[in-house]
Amino acid sequence: MSEPKAKVSIVGASGYTGGEVLRLLLNHPNVEIGQVTSESNVGNYVHSVHPNLRKVAPLQFVSATVLEPADVLFLALPHGEAQKRIEKYSTLAKVIIDLSADFRLRDPKLYAKYYEEEHTLPAWLEKFVYGLPEISREALKGAKYASGVGCNATASILSLLPLVKAGLVDTSKPITVDLKVGSSEGGASASAASHHPERSGAIRTFAAVGHRHEAEALQALGLKEVYLSITSVEMVRGVMATAQVFTQPGIEEKTLWKAYRACYGSEPFVRIVHEKTGIHRHPEPKWLAGTNFADVGWEAQPETGRIVSLAAIDNLGKGAAGSAVQCMNIMLGFEESAGLTFAGLHP
Amino acid sequence: MSEPKAKVSIVGASGYTGGEVLRLLLNHPNVEIGQVTSESNVGNYVHSVHPNLRKVAPLQFVSATVLEPADVLFLALPHGEAQKRIEKYSTLAKVIIDLSADFRLRDPKLYAKYYEEEHTLPAWLEKFVYGLPEISREALKGAKYASGVGCNATASILSLLPLVKAGLVDTSKPITVDLKVGSSEGGASASAASHHPERSGAIRTFAAVGHRHEAEALQALGLKEVYLSITSVEMVRGVMATAQVFTQPGIEEKTLWKAYRACYGSEPFVRIVHEKTGIHRHPEPKWLAGTNFADVGWEAQPETGRIVSLAAIDNLGKGAAGSAVQCMNIMLGFEESAGLTFAGLHP
Amino acid sequence: MSEPKAKVSIVGASGYTGGEVLRLLLNHPNVEIGQVTSESNVGNYVHSVHPNLRKVAPLQFVSATVLEPADVLFLALPHGEAQKRIEKYSTLAKVIIDLSADFRLRDPKLYAKYYEEEHTLPAWLEKFVYGLPEISREALKGAKYASGVGCNATASILSLLPLVKAGLVDTSKPITVDLKVGSSEGGASASAASHHPERSGAIRTFAAVGHRHEAEALQALGLKEVYLSITSVEMVRGVMATAQVFTQPGIEEKTLWKAYRACYGSEPFVRIVHEKTGIHRHPEPKWLAGTNFADVGWEAQPETGRIVSLAAIDNLGKGAAGSAVQCMNIMLGFEESAGLTFAGLHP
Amino acid sequence: MSEPKAKVSIVGASGYTGGEVLRLLLNHPNVEIGQVTSESNVGNYVHSVHPNLRKVAPLQFVSATVLEPADVLFLALPHGEAQKRIEKYSTLAKVIIDLSADFRLRDPKLYAKYYEEEHTLPAWLEKFVYGLPEISREALKGAKYASGVGCNATASILSLLPLVKAGLVDTSKPITVDLKVGSSEGGASASAASHHPERSGAIRTFAAVGHRHEAEALQALGLKEVYLSITSVEMVRGVMATAQVFTQPGIEEKTLWKAYRACYGSEPFVRIVHEKTGIHRHPEPKWLAGTNFADVGWEAQPETGRIVSLAAIDNLGKGAAGSAVQCMNIMLGFEESAGLTFAGLHP
Repeated sequence: MSEPKAKVSIVGASGYTGGEVLRLLLNHPNVEIGQVTSESNVGNYVHSVHPNLRKVAPLQFVSATVLEPADVLFLALPHGEAQKRIEKYSTLAKVIIDLSADFRLRDPKLYAKYYEEEHTLPAWLEKFVYGLPEISREALKGAKYASGVGCNATASILSLLPLVKAGLVDTSKPITVDLKVGSSEGGASASAASHHPERSGAIRTFAAVGHRHEAEALQALGLKEVYLSITSVEMVRGVMATAQVFTQPGIEEKTLWKAYRACYGSEPFVRIVHEKTGIHRHPEPKWLAGTNFADVGWEAQPETGRIVSLAAIDNLGKGAAGSAVQCMNIMLGFEESAGLTFAGLHP
Repeated sequence: MSEPKAKVSIVGASGYTGGEVLRLLLNHPNVEIGQVTSESNVGNYVHSVHPNLRKVAPLQFVSATVLEPADVLFLALPHGEAQKRIEKYSTLAKVIIDLSADFRLRDPKLYAKYYEEEHTLPAWLEKFVYGLPEISREALKGAKYASGVGCNATASILSLLPLVKAGLVDTSKPITVDLKVGSSEGGASASAASHHPERSGAIRTFAAVGHRHEAEALQALGLKEVYLSITSVEMVRGVMATAQVFTQPGIEEKTLWKAYRACYGSEPFVRIVHEKTGIHRHPEPKWLAGTNFADVGWEAQPETGRIVSLAAIDNLGKGAAGSAVQCMNIMLGFEESAGLTFAGLHP
Repeated sequence: MSEPKAKVSIVGASGYTGGEVLRLLLNHPNVEIGQVTSESNVGNYVHSVHPNLRKVAPLQFVSATVLEPADVLFLALPHGEAQKRIEKYSTLAKVIIDLSADFRLRDPKLYAKYYEEEHTLPAWLEKFVYGLPEISREALKGAKYASGVGCNATASILSLLPLVKAGLVDTSKPITVDLKVGSSEGGASASAASHHPERSGAIRTFAAVGHRHEAEALQALGLKEVYLSITSVEMVRGVMATAQVFTQPGIEEKTLWKAYRACYGSEPFVRIVHEKTGIHRHPEPKWLAGTNFADVGWEAQPETGRIVSLAAIDNLGKGAAGSAVQCMNIMLGFEESAGLTFAGLHP
Repeated sequence: MSEPKAKVSIVGASGYTGGEVLRLLLNHPNVEIGQVTSESNVGNYVHSVHPNLRKVAPLQFVSATVLEPADVLFLALPHGEAQKRIEKYSTLAKVIIDLSADFRLRDPKLYAKYYEEEHTLPAWLEKFVYGLPEISREALKGAKYASGVGCNATASILSLLPLVKAGLVDTSKPITVDLKVGSSEGGASASAASHHPERSGAIRTFAAVGHRHEAEALQALGLKEVYLSITSVEMVRGVMATAQVFTQPGIEEKTLWKAYRACYGSEPFVRIVHEKTGIHRHPEPKWLAGTNFADVGWEAQPETGRIVSLAAIDNLGKGAAGSAVQCMNIMLGFEESAGLTFAGLHP
């Protein structure tokens, strides 16, 4: 006899992140969908917003005001909304995963610096585990609350983590991460900036300094300084992180292989891509759309000690919904890869 | 001593069509720019809207309410607006070229059928010459008023014209034109449909039946039936027309060559592209961005009499601003290609 | 105790079609992978060619010369190769699905006309079932041999089938299908035509007349005439068919709904997309990448009897590997949708 | 009476760079085209390779073996070829502009380090002026020989030059430049890497360390260290440089404005793009295709002293053919902007 399935509802399922959580959960062996909410789409079928789900999920959106108890709640709301309602939602479900930025940081000061306002529920910050399994797997086991992750933070963290953990980083030199990102990072609402004739083919500097996800990278890596620059490129899904790090001159390939393997060798969703030949030598977000994989790699310059560390993800996958489902699997004791087996497409 | 330049103003210069007229006129040897209007950008430099014109044109938008007399007025307003103001504008300039759809059709009934409302100034329809030089060159000489052209109409007309003129079309069989179009056809305003994550990579049926430009094709070609279907594809500028026409079985290549050359051999902006080898055998809109060229070609199936006739243009070039400037050149007796010498880019 | 799994090998697994079959089978509950062959990649891991399969499938390519017996063989070879080896392969496996064009047509004359050479094994043609389940489901049950399908044929057939079956087509008027296709149709080998600076953003007439897939459409639909024109657009995966069909004037929406529902109402992988509002009113290949869905729809013009019938597929999915796996499921009595549950991505 | 025109020939005119030089010169008021060479296209019209030049330039390619004397020779040959033939070419023309990398560096040791072989004609290195007018204008006046520029070098140099010249750079911290580049950088020959299904939508790390253009940036900026990383993105033409530089904390906007204006205020082809609002706040290569413009800008973080300096160019324009024609204009005393007035397209 099979295990009873966990009933999972999604608050804010008409956006791209919420829709991706829904897509993943529909194929999840241990889950049944409870409710999916969207205030502007009440009564509409989910396929009216997410055309991929036509015939796959004959669900209708409901208002969050009629939300019923569930085993797990995913919150996929705009910034600031989860803070307002978390206390109410905590009465409806024991396990909550909030994909917004509201509960990612532990330190209210760091929050205030990057979000330019005080957190309204600082006491709740410590209740949440940061939802990147590669950082927080142990803390997630049995946890009740997990945050989501910032997509740019995820790519930055995963590119730098092996070097930081191995103590290879010369922190006297600035660590910079140049991120190339797709248009789905901006969400589902149209704007002048997302208008196709303007956005198509654009290489647009989106946040050269001061991007909020920097805060997560600082927290996760335990660094005092790390500098992110974000550039939008022609792509819908995907983040490519190109990190510039310095270590001691003379660094050897085998040292780097060891560091990356130590960090990721047993991770189910991180792959080391570091080949000598062919066109697939380095990580590329193109092959990751729809998956929960993060591909990482590097190129080193022994004479100067410079390491260019690379990470590619799908911003809606490993950078949002994928990691969130992976967290749920860990929190509830499911198979960690349940619902996350899509391999990605080629070409 | 050089000729005095014509003073030209553009009403509605913040849209894509008006901006393209401005770009062309800035390089025109016989023209000086008078005023450029935009109600929502009064006082702003044109480069705030059209980044390509930074440093090139230190002009500021004014309101159309302060429009001064000029030698030529280009109107690049939304559908219906020119009808409302043409009488006033005719007091400000002797020569007016209206790029909207308001004065393209001669027959008020055809207008009413396709635009689903009565024309408010039917008496003005006959004052305008249809602004496609390949159709109306003689009538344009010395004319005061010219309409613009519909981009999809232009591609459809130019693909079919040689066959119609040569009497090669079997009109007992339906003539269909499948048009693949870029996103700039939709204009400069953002919408859910133009949101990059949705529109990027889309192949979206935009108007399978009943597109308004069909009316222009009927008028220009003198046909009783011609059927357009419009599909938006991943492209910003460009229209590709694939027309299906039937003639008598046994049709020979030399007959077709003769028909196309008779029609376009002396046209400065229509090129016959019909090669036997290579990757540039047929017309392609990709190579026409920014130009006033229309490339036409065909492939025939002698055993069935089927001819697939092809035409490619830039919807903002030959399909709008380019033809309009070409019309002005003819109307004012300038060199017909003045201001229109950009060859297009490869790759 | 679970069912023993069928052992399935893929001949020609380094191409796009073979790679897609492999991706699908790796997630198939009733299948285990036997061998995957590629003459030019012997000894290499499949992820050296298909980067999406890194860590997912630690398989190495072998030569087809060492092919061992299996329960099922998928052949994904260039045109003409399957004819040469089918007799040998038939000694290795009871069930063979050949994705090439070699065994799609029943009539050697039709083959000779479209392929411009005689079929070398005409006696084998009748042993194969045409591998489009929507056409051949009953014949596939228990069959030993199935062909694959042409991607452009599939989209054409599925767009026209409901109208043909319902007897709605006025065959005195030509039926044309305009197909917009992605670059993966051309296969995995680089050429001048596929060079990114030339191909990116192209709208390139690829086969205006005489495309070989026309033969399959004629055979499947039982028509005497149907005319395909193929245009390559900016897309990697996808086919969009825009068919022009004429029926009696006065045709009603409910008649059309009835025809499409009668044809596809119980099909697991065909969805009717025909909405009155929103941006997802019609089928779009964008949402189908990686899936086995075909989305169909239409727009009708009652006053003329014209119907524009639409079908969208992934050329590597429903147009190749997806249909082939669906065939295998039917032939072997598996759940028809086994291995084919990926819903596609949005956005 | 008009000035006699300079006769200009192009060696290697079938590639992208040579084709772009040809396109520019066809519109140049002081130039007439002599010969255009291509060994693999002898006798073919230039439009067989460059479809944009159909009807614009009825020229046929000749072999370089029949090259005749001319006033100016542009060499657009693969790396290493110009070294072999420069002595011969110097007998045919007094003025030579070599767009390859052969004569860009003054120091044979720097050449040997980055090109991993000895220069075969080191004595010729000092005869050439580095062909970036923003660096070498005075030296170009009356010079006989100018090199071309590396496209990635150009974007890197122009992004950093104002800060270096103003003495604002803290050279104790590494200066890195992350470059996003289009596919035309790879030239006109197809390869597995340029195959559309693989390259389309790719974000591919092309040269994380050790790119050859680094040498030019070191030479032009007089720095001991500058680190380039190159990533190919979905774009055909364009380079976007995102440079990370550190200066003293407390840096003020007015200091930066002063530095950029001092450097570029009188440059005809460099525009400062640094706006507070709108979607065109920063430089973007999209708007520069076909132009000779370089757009530069920055974003600063006063609390840390970090400056992200930005430069966008068309790699075939300012990064190759555009700068080369600008050099010719300076060398021959023409109007500096002659032939370079195309403003670029929007959208």
